[in-house]
Amino acid sequence: MGGLTVMQALAAKLPGERFLYLGDTARLPYGTKSADTVRRYALQAAHALTDHGVKLVVIACNTASVGLPYLQEALAPMPVIGVIEPGAAAALAVAPNGPIGVIATEGTVKGGAYVRAIHAHSTAPVVQQACPLFVPMAEEGLTDGPIAEAVAHRYLDPLMARLPKPKVLVLGCTHYPALKGVITRVVGPEVTLVDSAAITANAVERLLDEKGLRATEKPGEHHFYCTDAPDRFARVGEIFFGNPIDPGAVEQVDLQ
Amino acid sequence: MGGLTVMQALAAKLPGERFLYLGDTARLPYGTKSADTVRRYALQAAHALTDHGVKLVVIACNTASVGLPYLQEALAPMPVIGVIEPGAAAALAVAPNGPIGVIATEGTVKGGAYVRAIHAHSTAPVVQQACPLFVPMAEEGLTDGPIAEAVAHRYLDPLMARLPKPKVLVLGCTHYPALKGVITRVVGPEVTLVDSAAITANAVERLLDEKGLRATEKPGEHHFYCTDAPDRFARVGEIFFGNPIDPGAVEQVDLQ
Repeated sequence: MGGLTVMQALAAKLPGERFLYLGDTARLPYGTKSADTVRRYALQAAHALTDHGVKLVVIACNTASVGLPYLQEALAPMPVIGVIEPGAAAALAVAPNGPIGVIATEGTVKGGAYVRAIHAHSTAPVVQQACPLFVPMAEEGLTDGPIAEAVAHRYLDPLMARLPKPKVLVLGCTHYPALKGVITRVVGPEVTLVDSAAITANAVERLLDEKGLRATEKPGEHHFYCTDAPDRFARVGEIFFGNPIDPGAVEQVDLQ
Repeated sequence: MGGLTVMQALAAKLPGERFLYLGDTARLPYGTKSADTVRRYALQAAHALTDHGVKLVVIACNTASVGLPYLQEALAPMPVIGVIEPGAAAALAVAPNGPIGVIATEGTVKGGAYVRAIHAHSTAPVVQQACPLFVPMAEEGLTDGPIAEAVAHRYLDPLMARLPKPKVLVLGCTHYPALKGVITRVVGPEVTLVDSAAITANAVERLLDEKGLRATEKPGEHHFYCTDAPDRFARVGEIFFGNPIDPGAVEQVDLQ
């Protein structure tokens, strides 16, 4: 569901492009699954999209981005882009010497993809924290108030007590922008939050231009696929997409 | 994972029986999925167990119990038992005229299985509340303290403000017994909590005796199947099973 924040940024940035979105709602969340399972599910999802003739695949999920090299190889020569590299680059632009804080799902933290992406370019110290309750809180709309604040303190205080204090905090899960307000209050306004959605949209724009793939005229309406009930997808999806989702544009597919 | 609370009660009640347990960890949680998807997944899981020659199937999950009639038909003449009917019967034994409170996942509440099971025997009013954060809180071990208490108040206060106040509260999700302490504090000690685990174990014992299927000597060690990483299953599973789980007795299977 959180990938819809990325789709929203992409659609705003690239109004000439038509997007096909797939949300694997029957098997969500990916955040607690093993890397092997996530890679396998991500490839099934990507095939469902390439079967519909897309020209580029965005893995709009931090946890599933663990499968990026695997999907790039399996789908070659199709360009495939994830959210980790753009997020890591944006964090380094703010704080080249760190320390850099990363909050993400259990799967992303364990996989260490942000640590690897940052350390490929810098020796900046990276501190990570898994925030398992943030996804169900965001899906329930529990994004503000005393409970949201208490949970945010539980996860973020230990991260921010580190010396020196991180100057930048990567929101390493596409659900977390829904909690931006409370996260900012807890970490303080001097910490820059990196939200993958906007940054990934920039990276996709650059890649389309590089490959000469950019559309000049929108070839049709966006379309949404999901693997469980379309009505729930449309209803919960609007929280993340920030726009109404026409239930008629949502289609249930089976990935197995 | 919560089904392990039921397995614990079963193993304690029926020390002569050998249990095969399957946790569909790759696709959990079931609580937010549609009834169609849950039925399909539950049947795949049940077939994986019947392929190993079990004599009785327990659906140790409230959400998946929506598939009980479907599984009973598909697996006939194999006896199949769910957790809803025993829970509803226990609630009615405490408060025959209600009102009866039910807390459960979004899927169980929407499916209305408890309401149907109670109203098959009584006109007792039933009030339901979905508690989506309870499952991830239990899996994170966040079962006590100010956050757990605040979340419990959020879900339970509106239910308990009803007049007359429910005399009994069904813990309609196998994860919720992990939060029994905080739930009791919030609803008050005069409200009886119905925990499906022990009640289902009694129902299974009766059914085995009725069918003459009761084992007299344990034919081997329990075995655990899961659909994602066995090490996480063993680690998180111990919270719910209340006993160590030998990682050597956990085997990953593919249900697709």
